[in-house]
Amino acid sequence: MGEQANPWECIEGKDIPATIELDPIIFCYIPPGAHVLDIGCATGKVSISLVSRGFSVTSVDINTEALKMTRSSSGSHNCSHMPLFVKATATSLPFADASFDAAVMQAFLTIVVSKEDRARIIREVCRVLKPKGCLYLADFGQTWHSKIYRERYINDLPVTKEEGSFLVYDQNTGEIAYVAHHFTEKELVFLLIENGFKVEFFKRDTFVTRTGNRVNGFVIVATKV
Amino acid sequence: MGEQANPWECIEGKDIPATIELDPIIFCYIPPGAHVLDIGCATGKVSISLVSRGFSVTSVDINTEALKMTRSSSGSHNCSHMPLFVKATATSLPFADASFDAAVMQAFLTIVVSKEDRARIIREVCRVLKPKGCLYLADFGQTWHSKIYRERYINDLPVTKEEGSFLVYDQNTGEIAYVAHHFTEKELVFLLIENGFKVEFFKRDTFVTRTGNRVNGFVIVATKV
Repeated sequence: MGEQANPWECIEGKDIPATIELDPIIFCYIPPGAHVLDIGCATGKVSISLVSRGFSVTSVDINTEALKMTRSSSGSHNCSHMPLFVKATATSLPFADASFDAAVMQAFLTIVVSKEDRARIIREVCRVLKPKGCLYLADFGQTWHSKIYRERYINDLPVTKEEGSFLVYDQNTGEIAYVAHHFTEKELVFLLIENGFKVEFFKRDTFVTRTGNRVNGFVIVATKV
Repeated sequence: MGEQANPWECIEGKDIPATIELDPIIFCYIPPGAHVLDIGCATGKVSISLVSRGFSVTSVDINTEALKMTRSSSGSHNCSHMPLFVKATATSLPFADASFDAAVMQAFLTIVVSKEDRARIIREVCRVLKPKGCLYLADFGQTWHSKIYRERYINDLPVTKEEGSFLVYDQNTGEIAYVAHHFTEKELVFLLIENGFKVEFFKRDTFVTRTGNRVNGFVIVATKV
């Protein structure tokens, strides 16, 4: 993520938003027993769900506390085997080429501020996937019909410099906690097809944010070309 | 529509695409017996459906043949009363201010080529609606995940000059029949809120085109502010 301080490295585990449910479509694309990479695993909800279904899971996050929480909660779920936790940044994954059958990225790109980093991340995922390996990607969509989000996109644009991005404030201090981005369909599709993937499944969904707002979402399955 | 020839004035009635089904949500917003304006009624599928449910319907189109077909098919449906058919262009409606309780616009804006005309049309609808009157709007959304549409948007851009627009060819002659536009959520929302409306209901849907392609769609109910 360059020289800039990354707020996600030191955010408290309990403050990491993780709200999107895993869409069952994923199980149509990931073969049983597959080795799955969970990128930006946060507190591990998705990793645990996948391990409990018999997948072999490697979970990556840059936040050490989040990884600890994932580890302890997976322990309490009596999983037959544990995810492998790795502290790493998604722009430079510490894995060999073609290491995984599949990758999962849930509400992760939304907090990657730079377009270049988003492209780098998708290329990295592509690199570590086996040929024809698949990426399950779920993330937030620009929700212009919502007055709340419309105003945030417009009011925060002078600071974020990217349409569809907005500032998220720390509820205690009132300071800017991080920048989030809501995607257009075009952005996500080109991010994938320009960085080694083919779109296999595409669904427009509605997600509920941690503050209870209903927001557009996308669920995508793409395969390595 | 200015001085330019409008292909919709002389297109054959049977060639007018009319594929989107009326979403039942409309009946939550239009009071029983309301006077409804159907803009771009084409062959009258929507008008007839509304008349058969007891609404008083005025149907507008610039295509005389389409109006004739609407008239004859409504006759064959044994409607207790008939829609009132008016040949007019949507940019200049021949009705007094506040004439209607509601308006319906199904897959109509998609064939309005100019952004200025789209805004003019929405302002005209607003003008002829009563205070708090509602507009039901259903139209096509940009479908970037579809390779077919993605390529059409990109390949036809030098001609259409508008992202999301594409050329539709006459299946017999191979000549350009008309230009169609697929909207972004942002485009439709601002078209409404900048021209006198407030968005009350917003749904992302999937429509099937007359050629059988699945394409993103929006169903919107907006009220006159």
